[in-house]
This record gives sequence, C-alpha cells and structure tokens, in this order.
Amino acid sequence: MLLEAVHHESGGSYAYPEGQGLRLLLRAAKGDLVNTWVLFRDPYDRQSERIQLLSKWGADDLFDYFTGIVHRSTMRFQYLFLLENRGRRIWFNEAGFHQERPHWGDFRLPYRYPPEPYRNWLGDAIVYQLIPDRFSPGPDSLREGPKQQGRPRGSLADIIDKLDYLSGLGVNALYLNPIFKAMSHHRYDTIDYFQVDPELGGEEQLLLLVEECHARKIRVILDGVFNHCGYEFFAFQDVVTRGAGSPYKDWFRIKAFPVRTKPIPNYETFGRHIWQMPKLATDHPVVQDYLASVVLHWVRRADIDGWRLDVADEVAPSFWRLLRGRLDGVKPETALIGEIWHRAAPWLEGGPLDSVTNYPLREVILDFFARDGIGVQTFAFRLHNLLIQHSHPTNTRLWTILGTHDTSRILTHCGGDVKRAALALVFQMTFVGAPVIYYGDEVGMLGGDPPECRRPMIWGKSLQNQELFSLYRRLIGIRTKHEALRRGSFRIVYLDPLRDVLGYERKSSGSRVLVFLNNSSVEAKISLDEQLLRDELTESQVHGANLDLPGRSAVVLVDWA
Amino acid sequence: MLLEAVHHESGGSYAYPEGQGLRLLLRAAKGDLVNTWVLFRDPYDRQSERIQLLSKWGADDLFDYFTGIVHRSTMRFQYLFLLENRGRRIWFNEAGFHQERPHWGDFRLPYRYPPEPYRNWLGDAIVYQLIPDRFSPGPDSLREGPKQQGRPRGSLADIIDKLDYLSGLGVNALYLNPIFKAMSHHRYDTIDYFQVDPELGGEEQLLLLVEECHARKIRVILDGVFNHCGYEFFAFQDVVTRGAGSPYKDWFRIKAFPVRTKPIPNYETFGRHIWQMPKLATDHPVVQDYLASVVLHWVRRADIDGWRLDVADEVAPSFWRLLRGRLDGVKPETALIGEIWHRAAPWLEGGPLDSVTNYPLREVILDFFARDGIGVQTFAFRLHNLLIQHSHPTNTRLWTILGTHDTSRILTHCGGDVKRAALALVFQMTFVGAPVIYYGDEVGMLGGDPPECRRPMIWGKSLQNQELFSLYRRLIGIRTKHEALRRGSFRIVYLDPLRDVLGYERKSSGSRVLVFLNNSSVEAKISLDEQLLRDELTESQVHGANLDLPGRSAVVLVDWA
Repeated sequence: MLLEAVHHESGGSYAYPEGQGLRLLLRAAKGDLVNTWVLFRDPYDRQSERIQLLSKWGADDLFDYFTGIVHRSTMRFQYLFLLENRGRRIWFNEAGFHQERPHWGDFRLPYRYPPEPYRNWLGDAIVYQLIPDRFSPGPDSLREGPKQQGRPRGSLADIIDKLDYLSGLGVNALYLNPIFKAMSHHRYDTIDYFQVDPELGGEEQLLLLVEECHARKIRVILDGVFNHCGYEFFAFQDVVTRGAGSPYKDWFRIKAFPVRTKPIPNYETFGRHIWQMPKLATDHPVVQDYLASVVLHWVRRADIDGWRLDVADEVAPSFWRLLRGRLDGVKPETALIGEIWHRAAPWLEGGPLDSVTNYPLREVILDFFARDGIGVQTFAFRLHNLLIQHSHPTNTRLWTILGTHDTSRILTHCGGDVKRAALALVFQMTFVGAPVIYYGDEVGMLGGDPPECRRPMIWGKSLQNQELFSLYRRLIGIRTKHEALRRGSFRIVYLDPLRDVLGYERKSSGSRVLVFLNNSSVEAKISLDEQLLRDELTESQVHGANLDLPGRSAVVLVDWA
Repeated sequence: MLLEAVHHESGGSYAYPEGQGLRLLLRAAKGDLVNTWVLFRDPYDRQSERIQLLSKWGADDLFDYFTGIVHRSTMRFQYLFLLENRGRRIWFNEAGFHQERPHWGDFRLPYRYPPEPYRNWLGDAIVYQLIPDRFSPGPDSLREGPKQQGRPRGSLADIIDKLDYLSGLGVNALYLNPIFKAMSHHRYDTIDYFQVDPELGGEEQLLLLVEECHARKIRVILDGVFNHCGYEFFAFQDVVTRGAGSPYKDWFRIKAFPVRTKPIPNYETFGRHIWQMPKLATDHPVVQDYLASVVLHWVRRADIDGWRLDVADEVAPSFWRLLRGRLDGVKPETALIGEIWHRAAPWLEGGPLDSVTNYPLREVILDFFARDGIGVQTFAFRLHNLLIQHSHPTNTRLWTILGTHDTSRILTHCGGDVKRAALALVFQMTFVGAPVIYYGDEVGMLGGDPPECRRPMIWGKSLQNQELFSLYRRLIGIRTKHEALRRGSFRIVYLDPLRDVLGYERKSSGSRVLVFLNNSSVEAKISLDEQLLRDELTESQVHGANLDLPGRSAVVLVDWA
C-alpha cells in the first residue's frame, strides 16, 4: 500500500455536510486500494459506531478517489478508515497509519452545521456577462471597431431595451463590467465609486435596469474594482496635490513624495507600473470601511444581488471577511464572486468568497475541445482533479467560463469551427458550475485577445449565427429544467479513449441526466444498459442499446417518460 | 520519483509571509529528492524571475520537507518547482507534474500582506491556568478533597493575594476556568453570563484582579463557554416554562415540547444526554448577537485580554467569525484560543481563532517522556508532522499543555517520577508554542483524571516540591530572556536513537538556543562543533566538544559571551 498517496482531512473538499449526512472523500494511489471502509460514531458514544464501505468515484493521473455519505442521528462525527489492498489492512486516522486500531487521533467533524442557504441561487445561476457600452443596438455601435478613439455609445438604457432578448435566451443573472465613473473605456480605473457613469445613463438608469431585471427574475451582478482605483480618484488626487500632508496618504502604498508617474510610478499599482491604477491599501481599516460602504450603498440603493470582484486575490483577505460580515447584516443573499485565475480554495469553503471565475477549468475545456491538446482520458483526469479541490456545493457555484473580456472568445479559440464551440458549450451547460455566457458568443462572435474580444454586440440577424443561438437557448432551457444539471453529482460512466467519447451522469434526488460527447471527427457507436431514453437536445427518442454519435456531436439524455 | 508523495499548496502551512519574504515548504517521499529548486517572479514581470535551492528541514515517518524563504521587491509571487532525483528532473506547479516547463498553472501567492500584529503577544505568552475557587491559601482549602459536597471556598480575592507568587514564577498570562454564575463547581453550566459568581467575589473582584494583573504585566484570559449554557440559564428556563410559545425556543435545539430531562433530554446537549447543559444554537443570528455581546461586555468592562473557548470545535464557525470581526472593532488584541483536541487547521490560518489547546502535541510528549511508548526517532518524526500542519507564526501561538483540568496531571502520568516530568517541562519550555502551566504542577502536585486533578492548590511549603518550582522559574526566565525560544525556528540538530538523546536548535534573528535532552536512564556523551557554550539551566560553562549528559537530564545552551 502506497501510504504516501493516502490523504483525507476532516474539512474542505474531503468532508462536508451533504443533505442530512456527511460526505467523505479519501484519496489513494491509483489502483492501490481494494476496499475502503469508514468507521464512524458520535464522539461521546462508543456504542453508536457503524461501519460503511466507500465506493470509487473517480481518478486523476495519480490517484483514485473513494467516497460515501455517512449518516448519524446526532450531528457529531468521529471516524477513522480501514484500508485494504490484496489482503493487507491498515488503519488510518489523523495520527497516521496503524497496524492495530489506534486509541487516539481519530478524525473529527465536531458538529455538522447546515450550510447557509442565502447564496444557493448561485448554483442555479445562468449568467450573461456584458460590457455595458458594447450592447447598444444603434447603428453606430456596428461601425465602431475595437480601437475607436471615442467612447462606445452604448448605455444602460440600451441594455434595458434588450432585456427581452436576454429573457428569451433564458439567463437568470446579468453580470455587468464596470459602470462607475472612470477614466478609460473599460472603466477599471474608477474615478467615483458612488457615481454611475453619466455616459451610461447614471444612477437613474441603473435603478431602472435592476428593477426591470428583477421583474424578469434576472439577478444583477456588478463589477467591484477594489484592488486599485483610477489616478483621478479623489483620494489619490489629494495625495498627488498635498503629498505627505494628505490625510489619504495611507490609502495607498506610496514609496516617496511627491507622487510621480514617470519614468515609473513611485507608488504601487495594479500590474506592472500602470500609473493610471494606484493600488488601494485594502488592509487599512479606513479604506476597508470606505470600500465596504460602496458595496453596501449600492446593495441598499439599487438592490444589487452580487459582485464580481476584480483581482480578488490581490485584495487583503481581511477586507473580504469584513465585507462578508457587513453584507450578512444587510442582504445575506448578496454573492461575492472573485476574479481568480488560479487555485482558489483558500478563498472558498469557509473563506469569504462564494465563487470564483473558474479559469483552470477553462484551460482544460480549451485543451480538449478547442486545441486537441489532450485526449479524453486526460480530460477526465483533469476534471476530477479540479472537482476534488472543492466541496460539491462550492463546485456548483463556480463560474464556468468559456471566455471573458480578458481572453479570446471561444469560437476564435476553436478556429471558427462552430461544431467545436458547440460541443464546448454542451459541456459548459451540463457540467458542475454556473455557466457564464460572454455576450455575443451565443451568436457566434469572433475576437482574439482584448480589445478584439470587446467589440460591440452584433445585432444584425444576418450577421448572427441563429443555429448557435438556438443551441444556447435550448441548452439553457435544459439546464433550467433539470435540477440534476445544476445541483447534481458528477460521475463519468463512459469513456472511449480511441474516439474521444465521454459519457457522464449528473444526478440529484429525483433527477438524472446522462450526457455523451463525441469529441472526435468520426462516428462512435455506444451501447447502454438503458433502453428507451429521450435526447433533450433533439427532443427525440433514443435507443440506448444502439446509440450512434456522429463526430463532434452530443446527446443529453433523460429517462423516457 | 514518487509523484504521489509530492505536495505543495500556496497557502496555509506551505506558503506564508515570513519577515519581508515568503516561506515555502515542499513535501516529498522520504529520501526521494536530491535537489529542489523554486523559480519565482512577479506575475506581471517575466524578467524578474529568479531561482533558489530549497534545503531539507526535517522528516516524518513518510516524508521529507524542504523549505526556503524567497524575497521579491514587489509583494506578488508566481512560482513553480523543479524537482530532481538522481538525474531525473520534473516540473511541478498547480496543474501537476510536467516533463517540460509548463506555460500554465504556476502557483500564486497573489500579494503578500503582512500578518496582523495584534495578537503577536500570544507567541510570547507563558500562561498559568487555574480553577478560581481552588487557589485559596486558607487552611480550609487544604482539608477539602476533590469530592467534597460544599463548594470550594477560594475566590478571586485569593488569587489577587497570590499574584506576587505568579509574578515570582514569571508567567505573563493568567487563564481562569469559568467565573460566571453557574450551577456546578466547575461552572461550565452558566446561569448568567453577565454576572461574576458572587461566591468568587463578583464583578468588583474581577475588575480588581485584572487591574492588579495588568499592573504586573500579566494578561487575563477568561473561559468562554458558548457551546452550551446551564439548565438554569434564563432563556432555557423560559422555554422550560413556556414551551413552544417561548421567544427563546430557537436559541436551542429542542426536539419536542414540553421540554423534558428524563429519561433522556428531548433537546440537544453538550456531550451525551447531559441535561444540565443545553446546547445553544450558535448558528442563530440572535444567539450570536447575544453571545458576542457577552464577550464585548467583559472586554470593555474588565479589559479582558483573551478567551479560552470551551468546546470551540462544536460551536458554529460563523459565530467565531462574527465575534472576531466585532472584537477587531473594539480591542483587536483580544485573543481567541479554542479548546480543540484534534487537528485544528480549519480554525486557524485565516480562520477565526488565534490558537488552540495543543492536545495532539501533549500525546506525543506523554508518549515519549512519560510512557516510554516511542523512541526518539519517532518522537522527532511526530514533532515534524505536527509542526507542518500550521505556519510557523501559528505554531508559536498554540498552547503547549502538559495537562489541564480535563486530564491527569503530568507528574501522575510520569508515575510520580519528577525527573521525567522535569524533562517534559524542559521540552515544553523550549519547544515552539506558548507553554501553559496547570496550577500546582510547578510544586509537584499529583492527580489523575477529574476530579482528582482539580484538588485545591497546595500552599504548605513542606508539601511543595521546591526543586521543581525552581526549575519552573528558571525555565520561564530562560524562555522570557531568549526570543529564539518564543519566536524562533525549530530544527533538529542531533539525534541518538540508541540513547534517546535529542538536540534541537531554536533560532531567530540575533538569538540562538541549543537544547539537548537525554530521555534515557543512562549517560550520553555528545560532541558538538561549538567550543565554549553556556548552559542556561545551571548557569555554567560547557565544553561543546565533550558534553556529558546524565540520564534524564537536559542542557539549554547559548553562546558563551
């Protein structure tokens, strides 16, 4: 038995409440364990001990993962594992590995508190992301290229005009890139956090937009840019003017006075020497109070439902904790979604954020569907490897992105191949996590790295890919209809390494969906135990025993009934 | 290379700020890696990359641990590892293991915020724990056995009378078992959180005690019993009286009305069916407000410095987070120390608690010094295994306990062998973590499981072990004098598995201490590189090249100068 590979911890993604029970995961070297039992009891009651066999859930390139849900009438769990491989048995608890059952050091989940329900809506969210001034249906917007000198002409009023379009698409959340008064087009260099940019229509239009969205059951998520401000932000300007005498000097990290921007700024900035974006001292209590007041102001005034937090990983974690605490007192449903490009576990699972932009998943998706960089076996390994980083409830809340305003668009990544993009979309809409649609992707817009990917929305019907749009709408409808796709477990049930076919099951109480993807260019034939099934994509009957899957195609199957 | 054994994560105990740099740890299978490099840079500046070799810090039974501190002029770190064993090289980052240098998935410590300084005093603390009514110097207390019917007669005034004794011993923090009005002797069944038990002298005596302590630079830590209250607590009594109509019914977890205590309580309690201690619904906002107001009241009114939190792991983590937030606004120096018997990482390192009672370390100490259960090699492995669970700053704050009011006393564990207890004490006072002295241990009190271990303090000089007391005082003085013992790093420098001799170095900037313990009954001879050293225990000169260590003895060496 490869003891070095065995891992469990009583928290995070390895032990968490699920329903009325406790979900446990155990990691072991691939192919190493034959049986894995858990012995569990109330820590205050030896007689309550029971034993349960765990089952294998999945694998990545190095490890197998075993899982099970254990139940107790009290909320307290003390447990240890008994591992078996080819006749050898080993006890495993917090104190390590033992030949004999240890009398000290069992794992403890001291009390199973139910998770807070307030932001459960994140798991049901289907988000539409748009840059507010790129959504204008006017003829001007069509003529504007990405590098125009003047500001794009779109406004919040234009978005309101297009809410029926979004309702028709079926999304239930709208994420707006920054809307506050700022220096540049992208508005990530805030001048005034309390002012909606007048060019976008000002506060009045924001209130109207939220009202109209809420009337359509669409939640509104704003972009919270708190890592840095714009050079023209009043507090920074005060420091520029008054130097070390400014009461705002501790709001920033200034290395010398007077403040200068050239040849390189003598103050910390976002990125590398970007003088337009002075870094805010988000660990400073006064700055924390100020920025929290911004969030609370807009939550109270405009009934905002969530915040996508720019550069969330470079902001002081203590600020996110303070913000979460204050929001809990005002509107605990308000979601905090961090822009984080790497492993984000420290911010989640009892941390201050509810979700993050799942860029690591996007890399895996691109590698498999767009780049032909990996085969289906590696794809499956990497999916498992990502899923075991977080508890399942957290995974359902992560933002599944195919592209954002900071990346090339999915169709561009796929070299314009709509079939590839469509397959990636089927995956996005049927995998664990809240899908985020980047505006225009649904009609087949192309665009490389910024600013290419930020072109104005295409509204002309003839320029839109209507077939792709229909697929988006259908998949959103399917995800909305089936709880299993939003909240359900994930398990791979079929894998053909020769034809890159993947089949997986999403399952929740009373709801079950089977997805089969053929990511090769050749037809694949599949035979399932199930007889009659229904393909939700084509709304037609399918015979499981004899399922033909053409190249680059997918089915989303449910029971026929 | 055993990839399954390799571990790193960019947080917790594997990556944290240290001084102006970033401390990194990497785990690998024992003996597997020859060289381990880290390549690090600012994520926004490829040109800033540097490479650094990590050094081996220690090992446990399965793994080697490599470590190093990397420095950058900006606060942002992106990094990956290059691992080498016998000519084979592998790249390792967040995305896994790679033959070629990967272009995606490096580890990120997005911004190195300095740790909050407010509770740094915990690392310097030498704590004295006492049960308030067992510290009376009156003749009555001597006659009282552990099972007397009446309440013990000691009060807070008696403690005030004995503060010179504590000052003389040299401690700088005092932890009092519960003092609020309660039902039983131990007072873990609170009747009134806002009332200091009149039998202990009431609020007036508490204020006086804190004032007198602070005048002697002794911090005061109270026992916060918030997991459950006493049956006679007003809110629970209201539920007993009014049943489902009580406005307090949601303060508890009551399974049926009316409330009954027999044959078993129909409400959740602490432990197993302990009707006297109804469990509080610490996840309920109103209960959280109430309990936080208790803490804030006493912090404001009596200037309390810290709280030892009873059954901290069974209380809702959201309550600890809320409490931490509120304390930060009132007195951020207030420490929260959880009573947790098992692995406590989820509550620490960005979690809501500052420290916990380190019971797992106590088990290791007892196994080695008291029980002869393990040899010195296993002892060393298990120390390393405990240390790598937390960042070093957190480790310095954990409470190193040899015994508490819930366990047998250390001398009893040692079968009355003072030499063994003394050696355990040397270790406690020179290891990483804040030592807690359980009242009476310093004069050689004996006592098994409760209530045996809770006998009144022995004050008669003839009944006290004066030699042991002197050793306590000397070791406290040494720990107070040498920053290295409180804040410094820990590294094993000598290990004799035949004679159970352990040598370790504690080192901080400008301060270094070497400790050698001979845990066998036979003499050991040691030869060090160092020439002239000074043994702080005997205050005498020692020749490092020829160091005799009698059985069950220790030296605490510093440079001779």
